[in-house]
Amino acid sequence: MSTIAAISTPAGKGALAVVRLSGPESRNIAERHTKPLEDHRAIYSLFRDGNEVTDEVIVTLYEAPRSYTGEQMVEIACHGSTYVQQKILQVLIADGARLAEAGEFTRRAFLNGRLDLSQAEAVADLIDSTNAAASRLALSQLRGGYARKLKELREELVELTSLMELELDFSQEDVEFADRGKLHELAATIERESGRLTESFRLGNALKNGLPVAIVGKPNVGKSTLLNALLGDDRAIVSDIPGTTRDTVEDSTVIGGFQVRFVDTAGLRRSDDAIESQGIERSLRAAERAEVILYVVDAEEEESAVKQELAELAGKVPLEGRSVIVVRNKADKGASSYSEGHLVSAKRGDGLEELKRTIIENVAQQEIPDVALTNLRHYEALTKLHGAIEHVIEGLDSEVSADLVVIDLRDALFHIGSITGEVTSDEVLSSIFTRFCIGK
Amino acid sequence: MSTIAAISTPAGKGALAVVRLSGPESRNIAERHTKPLEDHRAIYSLFRDGNEVTDEVIVTLYEAPRSYTGEQMVEIACHGSTYVQQKILQVLIADGARLAEAGEFTRRAFLNGRLDLSQAEAVADLIDSTNAAASRLALSQLRGGYARKLKELREELVELTSLMELELDFSQEDVEFADRGKLHELAATIERESGRLTESFRLGNALKNGLPVAIVGKPNVGKSTLLNALLGDDRAIVSDIPGTTRDTVEDSTVIGGFQVRFVDTAGLRRSDDAIESQGIERSLRAAERAEVILYVVDAEEEESAVKQELAELAGKVPLEGRSVIVVRNKADKGASSYSEGHLVSAKRGDGLEELKRTIIENVAQQEIPDVALTNLRHYEALTKLHGAIEHVIEGLDSEVSADLVVIDLRDALFHIGSITGEVTSDEVLSSIFTRFCIGK
Repeated sequence: MSTIAAISTPAGKGALAVVRLSGPESRNIAERHTKPLEDHRAIYSLFRDGNEVTDEVIVTLYEAPRSYTGEQMVEIACHGSTYVQQKILQVLIADGARLAEAGEFTRRAFLNGRLDLSQAEAVADLIDSTNAAASRLALSQLRGGYARKLKELREELVELTSLMELELDFSQEDVEFADRGKLHELAATIERESGRLTESFRLGNALKNGLPVAIVGKPNVGKSTLLNALLGDDRAIVSDIPGTTRDTVEDSTVIGGFQVRFVDTAGLRRSDDAIESQGIERSLRAAERAEVILYVVDAEEEESAVKQELAELAGKVPLEGRSVIVVRNKADKGASSYSEGHLVSAKRGDGLEELKRTIIENVAQQEIPDVALTNLRHYEALTKLHGAIEHVIEGLDSEVSADLVVIDLRDALFHIGSITGEVTSDEVLSSIFTRFCIGK
Repeated sequence: MSTIAAISTPAGKGALAVVRLSGPESRNIAERHTKPLEDHRAIYSLFRDGNEVTDEVIVTLYEAPRSYTGEQMVEIACHGSTYVQQKILQVLIADGARLAEAGEFTRRAFLNGRLDLSQAEAVADLIDSTNAAASRLALSQLRGGYARKLKELREELVELTSLMELELDFSQEDVEFADRGKLHELAATIERESGRLTESFRLGNALKNGLPVAIVGKPNVGKSTLLNALLGDDRAIVSDIPGTTRDTVEDSTVIGGFQVRFVDTAGLRRSDDAIESQGIERSLRAAERAEVILYVVDAEEEESAVKQELAELAGKVPLEGRSVIVVRNKADKGASSYSEGHLVSAKRGDGLEELKRTIIENVAQQEIPDVALTNLRHYEALTKLHGAIEHVIEGLDSEVSADLVVIDLRDALFHIGSITGEVTSDEVLSSIFTRFCIGK
């Protein structure tokens, strides 16, 4: 196993930076440049490159297996100049360390059994997290989360599957080694568990990637002004000319600890302009993908007209499971007697705080679970697991022959194992770890 | 003394980040959220905010005085998500730590006697360093550098000055407590030392801030194209129209380990255009400030014409002490028989590597000293010290009365002390430490 090195702190200049080594030669390479090290002890030392002093550093040795990767590791905390960081890294590489690939430290932690695959994936999610909810879900996944439960279920299932496979060897003799009742019960538990997890994906995904909120409505009701006001930023181009927005404009902000991803869309109207028509088509698709739709109308618009518009929208976009919030904008210019929806003035900033609270109400009211699925790869595996285990149950119920049930069981085992990493390919690993930053 | 906290690693996302605490409550505040700590030991722990787990961290306690600041310190290495870093900092602040000001950790190190003032200043220089030479000079200053020598000289001078002041109390009695020969010798040493250091400033400054190189010449000889080619970047606007460049355009690059700061200038010609005339005035001033002047001519230009131009330049800018390199550009279009100077094609990139070598030749040939003055504040103080000590020597030579010599001695002592920090004001300290980044 080679020894790898990388700068693990964010890129750029800072008070201090950390250069990491992992692998069997870590200590040897480091000690050529520093004082003798002691396990888990922060040692002040000069870092020397031959006769030249490169920096004054704090070095910590982590002997295997009590380290992040499970290998021998050394962390060198140096002054955070871009030059010094690079120089120390170069010296280590000249001495036989290899520049680590993206995620290679975590990959080694996985290969050495320090983390299962879902935990390793959680490390990347945790580093990427920009809000409380995403951070919490990633951390819970890192600390074991649902993977622990899945691993237990998998072990039981492995045992019962083996017994059932044994029956196949004695197929002439009509024996039953695997207790059908127990197997049925276990399959039902796995079905329930995988169903519960896939259902949590919608919320988990909203918490991790941001609650998708589409801003739709007729042209010139102030959708782009509303986007800018909600973001507190001049993100979208605003003008008095109806149809200014053509492309959907997207940006995120954090409201009450939740990431919210707003999509501003082209105004909905009949248009002969080919580009604008395409824009309108995109608006409808954005509304379909949203969890929350802000339907913007003019505050002066009458109740009947608003209802008519909403009915038209419902004809184009399935609205079940989404919350539609009517936003009555331009309150600064006056308002009709219609009392539903949120009266705001995006221009003056009136009523925006109440609107923001309403936007996250649904998410905020749902107890943020300690466990929710946030990972698309896991979602897909669990959906397949759910299908396979349903087949197992059907097979047991209709008492089909053991060899057919075994095929579905093997299928189910494969999908559980692919989440936690018991079953995995180099290709899957590579696609997972290239998401990481260098140095992790 | 309050307890301060800051994120010490560079801003942004990375594999890991370090949050630092310094002050008497550091350990108490940290241990409310982590496992019990041990001095200088890297401890793996959860970081808890009440019942909520914020992250898995490595925490190291540094008991006073064996820490960077000389106070009790705690370093928390967490996952480098922007959210997690901020969250940990917020939790520490909610618990009574105060957000550290820029440079406050190093300021405390100075106030606690862990660093003298010139060493503290070297920390900022070291973090700012982007090349080998600047990094080496900053590190040598951090490790004691010339300040140690100055401190020794100051101590001797304090003693002799005190003895001479004592004479003033016995002024009726015509006694000499201070050995005049010894004082003369010491003053001569200080004069030599301060002279040597102020002389090293020119090189030190070039090494730290970059060797200033001005690109001058007539209009349309391709000065901006040459700048872009040397930088490997489209920094300056290039056109075929003579007089395109009006403002001086500046940018830096590293050549052979040395920072080089190029200044592209307006073409030198008589102009009635008021803006262009101003630009030409600026070109001449840039040439005055440069250590190296690249004088660009057309490769087809005849020897006599080039000599004529150089003579004109010498009439406007004092060229002594500067190296003037003639660059014969547009070699792709043909060249005259004139053989001096560097034949290059900025457009095609021909001859640039040789030119770069020539540019840094002068600096590269000078042995990079272990000690060179890079700090303008020190340069000014040493210049004043040199003046004061010259007065002392003159006074001694012409046997003026002790009370007059004492005035110059006190002056000299003040200037030495201001470098190492024995004499200093809050104002000076503030202006020094605000240069730092937060977290150092």
